[in-house]
Amino acid sequence: MLKGKVLVAQGGGPTAVINQSLVGVVLEARKFAQVEKIYGALHGVRGIVNEDLLDLTQETVANLEAVAKTPSSALGSTRDKPDRDYCNKIFETVKAHGISWFFYIGGNDSSDTVRIVSEMAQSQNYPLRCVHIPKTIDNDLMENDHTPGFPSAARFVSQAFIGANLDNRSLPGVYLGVIMGRHAGFLTAAAAYGRKLPEDGPHLVYLPERTFSLDKFLADVKATQEKFGRCVIAVSEGIHDETGEPIAVKLAETVEKDAHGNVQLSGTGALADLLTEEIKTKLGIKRVRGDTLGYLQRSFAGVVSDVDQKEAREVGEKAVQFAMFGSSDGTVTIKRVGNYAVDYQLMPLTAVAAKTRVMPDEFISAEGNDVTPAFIEYLRPLIGSDSPDPAQLRTSGSRVAKILKK
Amino acid sequence: MLKGKVLVAQGGGPTAVINQSLVGVVLEARKFAQVEKIYGALHGVRGIVNEDLLDLTQETVANLEAVAKTPSSALGSTRDKPDRDYCNKIFETVKAHGISWFFYIGGNDSSDTVRIVSEMAQSQNYPLRCVHIPKTIDNDLMENDHTPGFPSAARFVSQAFIGANLDNRSLPGVYLGVIMGRHAGFLTAAAAYGRKLPEDGPHLVYLPERTFSLDKFLADVKATQEKFGRCVIAVSEGIHDETGEPIAVKLAETVEKDAHGNVQLSGTGALADLLTEEIKTKLGIKRVRGDTLGYLQRSFAGVVSDVDQKEAREVGEKAVQFAMFGSSDGTVTIKRVGNYAVDYQLMPLTAVAAKTRVMPDEFISAEGNDVTPAFIEYLRPLIGSDSPDPAQLRTSGSRVAKILKK
Repeated sequence: MLKGKVLVAQGGGPTAVINQSLVGVVLEARKFAQVEKIYGALHGVRGIVNEDLLDLTQETVANLEAVAKTPSSALGSTRDKPDRDYCNKIFETVKAHGISWFFYIGGNDSSDTVRIVSEMAQSQNYPLRCVHIPKTIDNDLMENDHTPGFPSAARFVSQAFIGANLDNRSLPGVYLGVIMGRHAGFLTAAAAYGRKLPEDGPHLVYLPERTFSLDKFLADVKATQEKFGRCVIAVSEGIHDETGEPIAVKLAETVEKDAHGNVQLSGTGALADLLTEEIKTKLGIKRVRGDTLGYLQRSFAGVVSDVDQKEAREVGEKAVQFAMFGSSDGTVTIKRVGNYAVDYQLMPLTAVAAKTRVMPDEFISAEGNDVTPAFIEYLRPLIGSDSPDPAQLRTSGSRVAKILKK
Repeated sequence: MLKGKVLVAQGGGPTAVINQSLVGVVLEARKFAQVEKIYGALHGVRGIVNEDLLDLTQETVANLEAVAKTPSSALGSTRDKPDRDYCNKIFETVKAHGISWFFYIGGNDSSDTVRIVSEMAQSQNYPLRCVHIPKTIDNDLMENDHTPGFPSAARFVSQAFIGANLDNRSLPGVYLGVIMGRHAGFLTAAAAYGRKLPEDGPHLVYLPERTFSLDKFLADVKATQEKFGRCVIAVSEGIHDETGEPIAVKLAETVEKDAHGNVQLSGTGALADLLTEEIKTKLGIKRVRGDTLGYLQRSFAGVVSDVDQKEAREVGEKAVQFAMFGSSDGTVTIKRVGNYAVDYQLMPLTAVAAKTRVMPDEFISAEGNDVTPAFIEYLRPLIGSDSPDPAQLRTSGSRVAKILKK
């Protein structure tokens, strides 16, 4: 039987529930007698290379449970994408510290790191069990019905647009919100989840899965404005033209060309500002507001899906069980069963590593500017309990007859 | 005894609890036999002028209670700032529909409207009781310890910065968040509420109550970055130089001058983008991110202070009681009693109308780049129950000794 130490790390962008997975690993690993110590690497793979390790074996359960409820990566994260040389250095630390189990919580880049380390151990005949634990707000991992972190981020985006729709209803005009997700539109699509009445926004949803046409966009906004006297729009940061060029870059170039000057595009508010400016200029609508939801989407404290919390904990727990009782490396995947339960399966790392899943066609409207009811049904079991349910004053039969202006 | 109809309306920017005040008025007014009908004006004073009125007398209690929990203004709002002519038109509708009581829920502009209408009724000897009901996320009404809407917005900003601090701790760099409040810094100051450990951000807080110096700002950021290896900054949208010129305009002019071109400044992300660009360029820090919290601050669905909900309901309820049992027009004000209770007083409209309250000096640090503990104590009873309490892994005594790099 394998004996030795557990090493766990967190990679990529933080989420609201990534610490649930960490705590799932730590608490489950403590149950196994063959585990001598549980180490956490600070700032992901970089901490492994630099031997910046924390001994989590004696963390109290009370504090671990409090950390589990805290958003962002408690061990710290990294954007490093290791190549083979980098992975060699990871492997040196693994060997020096007698690591027998390696768990890496992250997205598709992180799963690729696990794949390289796993192959390296096998080729050197070093007994190391490697398991990748999924997380990403983008929901873009292959083989997964959804990924931990996405449901809570989706809940945040949904609640933001419930509020934005009501705000826009109160003070009519055009409101545009830019949402994270460069290649996959799942999180942007979640903006539509809270719609209740036929006139509720977002009225338009633009996803990176479809080519963005500025002319079509402006025509859509104009038509919506004429129909409802207002317009709420959800836009993915990843929208692009037919050549794949991001719309933010394209619009900025136009501005630059017009001005013969140097336009600053590095700020995160650029896409929202450029699109609202287009609407103002081309459609002549006065009240046009743009927000970029930014980092709040992935780490806002206090908005979380309880379903997501539970599943994020479970993928950490299952990873340890697969590692201890199984005989192969892999990635923990979430499969949907019925309506609604989940099953966790260990799949080969190559099935997920460095690949990107995008929204299936059935979730995108034919016109490419909205989601389908199928997407809302897909999201419903994930969003969690006690979602806000906005109400409005009843207007039928209660309008007061005019006296002066009849 | 006065008999007739009640007219209620909502003005200015929406808040998370402005519908609590509306429902407080409606439910309380229904108890008085002299009230024949309760009308709500759609989109504030504009709805009064246009006779766009909703009869709320027969709204069900269940729906009213659901509306009370819904953010933004259920009756719709307006940015119209009525002059005397406009108020004359309001007064025509008031007379035509036999309105005896007028309640306007809003900020200092709305209270000034109530003042004009009140004076008009008195000069014409028309029996109209007018009461202004406070609301504003800016917390800038004179005579009030705080105003309904502010505590919930403060809670949102606090939760956003708890998350932003943890995100920044996980992936270090500079993070800057721009917060609403052109003249009063209360909401920006709330960013500091969730700090728990000495190294927690926001490390720097810039308020419109102090002159903003770009050089001092950059020196502050540099010093923080050197001390903590990271820096989280809260900035009010209203920061300005010694002449009162907004920093967003000033920085854009510099960019424009450099580029001999035409810079788009109308988008809301401009200030964050310009300041992060300054940090990148002048301090040579690579990872600099800027968010503009935008409309989420005032209408996000699902983040609300229960204290704020209760008080917003009570100011509506008290307004009706003051109007029915009292003998003068006025504005309902919130006074703090002890630690912590509140008392509601009706004060003359002129005490609040068209005036702006700003942060007192005792809430601002000597250096002008942070809040004081006194501000945190001021905010504590307002923020509401079950605020997120982030936890971190304990690092003392748990660092693993290095083997390779010892």
